Amino acid sequence: MSVPNRSRRPTIKDVAAEAGVSPAAVSKAFNGTGRISEQTRLRIQEAATGLGWSPNAAASALRRSRSHTIALVVRRPSDVLGTDPHFSELINGLESELAPRGYGLLLHLVADGDEEGRLYERLAAEGRVDGAVLTESRIDDPRPVQLRRLGLPFVLLGGPDGVMLSHQETGVTEAVEHLLALGHRRIGYVSGPPELVHSRFRQGVFTDVLDRSGLAPVAVIPTDFGAEAAIAATERLLALSPRPTAIVYANDSMAMCGIGAAQRAGLSVPGELSVIGYDDLPLGRWLHPRLTTVDQRVTVVGAAAARVLLAEVGEERVPAPELAESPRLVVRESTGPASP
Amino acid sequence: MSVPNRSRRPTIKDVAAEAGVSPAAVSKAFNGTGRISEQTRLRIQEAATGLGWSPNAAASALRRSRSHTIALVVRRPSDVLGTDPHFSELINGLESELAPRGYGLLLHLVADGDEEGRLYERLAAEGRVDGAVLTESRIDDPRPVQLRRLGLPFVLLGGPDGVMLSHQETGVTEAVEHLLALGHRRIGYVSGPPELVHSRFRQGVFTDVLDRSGLAPVAVIPTDFGAEAAIAATERLLALSPRPTAIVYANDSMAMCGIGAAQRAGLSVPGELSVIGYDDLPLGRWLHPRLTTVDQRVTVVGAAAARVLLAEVGEERVPAPELAESPRLVVRESTGPASP
Repeated sequence: MSVPNRSRRPTIKDVAAEAGVSPAAVSKAFNGTGRISEQTRLRIQEAATGLGWSPNAAASALRRSRSHTIALVVRRPSDVLGTDPHFSELINGLESELAPRGYGLLLHLVADGDEEGRLYERLAAEGRVDGAVLTESRIDDPRPVQLRRLGLPFVLLGGPDGVMLSHQETGVTEAVEHLLALGHRRIGYVSGPPELVHSRFRQGVFTDVLDRSGLAPVAVIPTDFGAEAAIAATERLLALSPRPTAIVYANDSMAMCGIGAAQRAGLSVPGELSVIGYDDLPLGRWLHPRLTTVDQRVTVVGAAAARVLLAEVGEERVPAPELAESPRLVVRESTGPASP
Repeated sequence: MSVPNRSRRPTIKDVAAEAGVSPAAVSKAFNGTGRISEQTRLRIQEAATGLGWSPNAAASALRRSRSHTIALVVRRPSDVLGTDPHFSELINGLESELAPRGYGLLLHLVADGDEEGRLYERLAAEGRVDGAVLTESRIDDPRPVQLRRLGLPFVLLGGPDGVMLSHQETGVTEAVEHLLALGHRRIGYVSGPPELVHSRFRQGVFTDVLDRSGLAPVAVIPTDFGAEAAIAATERLLALSPRPTAIVYANDSMAMCGIGAAQRAGLSVPGELSVIGYDDLPLGRWLHPRLTTVDQRVTVVGAAAARVLLAEVGEERVPAPELAESPRLVVRESTGPASP
């Protein structure tokens, strides 16, 4: 997950300025009232389309001004919430800022991108939400363009914002350097879905850090973030000869499944296999061995996203979110010196 | 968690019948239009109050008819979602029925009952939701009366419905009998908050089943369902002399924390301590040892609750929910013969 990306909602004034006319002329062009030349009408329409402005969006923004609701649309399979507490943590972070202001979070699960797109159209048209949190930024993600067109404020998490993503490097970098310092040379990586921006990014960092030490990953195995995939990936890695002495997982849920799979195969963690997760979910602190993981501050990011959105929708002026905190490695008990 | 409790939304016809007048007279009494005697007006008001009907509620029910949103208000501390995936499972169950019909789930976290009560007033007045899922039924729970007054359909989970709760007995009964059959005689219980209906109920069943075998619990320790409390309770139980040979936990998250605490104290699970959870969360299947637990079918109950609500709010006729399934013990690897 990356940090929020501020949206910019176009206004009728922006369209007027772009088309070189008055706001009243824009209004006329769209309402069909008053006299206006066809040429001017076309120029105004082009400007509006270019900026992603529409009179409906403006009207629904007005209606929306009192919904006190933020949308969170989750596109993974519906069983993922139970398996991966990551989303619960994100919701906790969002709610920590929304609840004190009386805002609710409208949760929708959708099967695919088409359904997600239709849902935003409906939510905007019906004025049901003041803004949206977009998670799991994808390669060529169509949502930011759509939400700007709908006039719906949003924050994008796990996004392609270069400045913010550069902070993310620290977590994976620290994880790999921690393993290298413990003498590990054969390290595997269990990744998330390759279509997610953060999956590709972290996998790239993982490979780069090894490369700087003249090493290559034993293997990089993509997954759907699910438990079955994590266990299958672990078993594949443990079947390699020579066996990796450490595995880095793209989230904590998969790392916990991986520890279980290794222990079931008779391996001691960290005696014969070191394991690192990503997220710092609460449960990882209580299991035995306690999980070494990257704290990506999901709740902090969620709270920051909520504050950005609350400022966008005109709630009381809120302090600028602290987005400077970068993910950091938390060393616990699941990592140790490399076995020979 | 128990199963849904069907609500009944009063109509203007009910009020008219109760007061012995026409619906038009009820309308006049509340709108102040037309002529109506003070005596009749008072009788109509009494009937309306008794039935929990109000013209505002009826109006907002009309407005509400297109919100396509169900409220889920969570009253536990806001960090509980991350620690306890139980709510994620419930949300999955609800969404499995809501999502295909285009319904969203409006999630609100509240600090206490007063805040929860004010929230329902606002949601009803603004017509923001079509119905509500009430979780964690409490002793003398004020919410059913309030929501009936507001004309807001609801289902109550973990409720005091005797018929449905009797099904719940099977899970705890099977758990204790499983331990007794394995030779355990010194069994501790780590319970949930005593103000919750299901906490008291399950703890009562636990004690009753032991009692039938002429045994008493080694100790029953209440918690707030949190990880710290679960670990503290486990350490207290393990410090007893003689030590219990088995511990039953009121949820899986606490059981997993308990296994970690026991292993950290140098005890093997199940060699020296048997552990049983409650919920059957996905992660329990993958850890080592795999968790023996009671499958209370959280997602099934969530789906059933959603279907009841969808029928109440006038969505397409949905099949009657299958509420007959009772919780059942799932024996995995965390239970074994009692150590001497």
